[in-house]
Amino acid sequence: MTSFTYRKQLTIEWGQCDPAGIVFNSRFFEMFDASTWQMFEAALGVKPHELASAFGIMGIPLVDVRANFIKAVKFGDIVDLTSRVSEFRRSSFDVEHRLSVGGEVAVEGGETRVWASRSKDDPEKIGGAAIPGEVIAKFSGR
Amino acid sequence: MTSFTYRKQLTIEWGQCDPAGIVFNSRFFEMFDASTWQMFEAALGVKPHELASAFGIMGIPLVDVRANFIKAVKFGDIVDLTSRVSEFRRSSFDVEHRLSVGGEVAVEGGETRVWASRSKDDPEKIGGAAIPGEVIAKFSGR
Amino acid sequence: MTSFTYRKQLTIEWGQCDPAGIVFNSRFFEMFDASTWQMFEAALGVKPHELASAFGIMGIPLVDVRANFIKAVKFGDIVDLTSRVSEFRRSSFDVEHRLSVGGEVAVEGGETRVWASRSKDDPEKIGGAAIPGEVIAKFSGR
Amino acid sequence: MTSFTYRKQLTIEWGQCDPAGIVFNSRFFEMFDASTWQMFEAALGVKPHELASAFGIMGIPLVDVRANFIKAVKFGDIVDLTSRVSEFRRSSFDVEHRLSVGGEVAVEGGETRVWASRSKDDPEKIGGAAIPGEVIAKFSGR
Repeated sequence: MTSFTYRKQLTIEWGQCDPAGIVFNSRFFEMFDASTWQMFEAALGVKPHELASAFGIMGIPLVDVRANFIKAVKFGDIVDLTSRVSEFRRSSFDVEHRLSVGGEVAVEGGETRVWASRSKDDPEKIGGAAIPGEVIAKFSGR
Repeated sequence: MTSFTYRKQLTIEWGQCDPAGIVFNSRFFEMFDASTWQMFEAALGVKPHELASAFGIMGIPLVDVRANFIKAVKFGDIVDLTSRVSEFRRSSFDVEHRLSVGGEVAVEGGETRVWASRSKDDPEKIGGAAIPGEVIAKFSGR
Repeated sequence: MTSFTYRKQLTIEWGQCDPAGIVFNSRFFEMFDASTWQMFEAALGVKPHELASAFGIMGIPLVDVRANFIKAVKFGDIVDLTSRVSEFRRSSFDVEHRLSVGGEVAVEGGETRVWASRSKDDPEKIGGAAIPGEVIAKFSGR
Repeated sequence: MTSFTYRKQLTIEWGQCDPAGIVFNSRFFEMFDASTWQMFEAALGVKPHELASAFGIMGIPLVDVRANFIKAVKFGDIVDLTSRVSEFRRSSFDVEHRLSVGGEVAVEGGETRVWASRSKDDPEKIGGAAIPGEVIAKFSGR
């Protein structure tokens, strides 16, 4: 578990909710994706749309994503979202998202992503690249 | 034109953009809708999810919406969105949205909405109700 | 008005609807966009993702879009969507979308799009290109 | 594993794809949700918007959802989606979704849902209700 935690507050919008008056599940994955990019910006000082060029990668594609819905989140709810990297491996990493309303956990999410680059021999081929030590260090507060 | 203007700043997210790297058109209508609710909150001091009950209406449904795309808005762009009511009529009103990037107008949007209530005789029937003078006054800065 | 009309049928999904139980407005613009691409495929026999390369353009970006909501469209509604090009100009064109439920028009939409190419001198510059006569002919049933 | 399998074919739309030209992850959860409702319709002969009233429940809310991205899915790809209930328990059930392109599995998804009803004593309280035997039987091909 890295020590860097990204926090933001959101207010649930009408258009994010379904006929039951609660957030439609796909909307949480939009929130998670945006939060991961913003967490990288907060930790590294690199804007989301410059992350790829800054590190010579093609991006940080998802290989796995999941969410656990504990309490319904409703239109107008003020939501605290915290995101952190729970583990860095050689060329992939896990992100944990936690969404709370009024101090109670409502949704827990998780992502596994790859630090991905194009093959020099075949640009159509995408594979994992070694995550730079400086990136990991910035998330570790070292 | 009322004098109250609601302003907010947004940063364009990866998931809002299409394969051309620019915001997919439907996403602007999500931004407009959210901004209209927030403008009402800012002007009236009533939270979006309490607007209907506060004024005894069923909502403020759209009857017409439009957007004019002047400049492409891209992933990572910092966007200034301003929204205002351009006209109040007896039971409907027009909202103007303007989205700028770096001081240049990128998208102009417009909505026509109804101040709608359910018929007392037939709750299935929805119609326009008179917009309260206090609502109009708060947008006029009077 | 060209004579070619593209028709499709859709069933409204839970995730397309808002807390009022009706389709959230931005979803109609997703339907319109998809229908325009599919109309081109039906008229020209060119798949959407091959349209740009087939005609040497960068795409058919929107410059203007609008919708008029006449009747609420609800979860589970079976919708008939018809789309046609109402006018071709030198390098732009208008599309009309009409969405009906049970034979009654519920939403009317309109798009103005550009037949766009990159400047040969400056690939960053995008402008309108002349719409090929063969394209217009196929929509005219000639 | 129940024996009933729901199958549909989709073509990936421009508006479902991100700047990398591939489907944005949240869109798969829209596809999964719609497919689960349609699978119930196909198995039970009950339309999605009538499922709740037909069985006296408030709905089939998600408690858990996950996806595993194996191959990128691109604009224009023709996708085969199969969905099935992998397990029925007393008041909850698991759905498996598999999305293939050209015969190769691209995305595997899973949902856990509750067969949920409102408490008779407190309509604000929602809990699991026993899944009717006739429902399970129809998925089992018995």
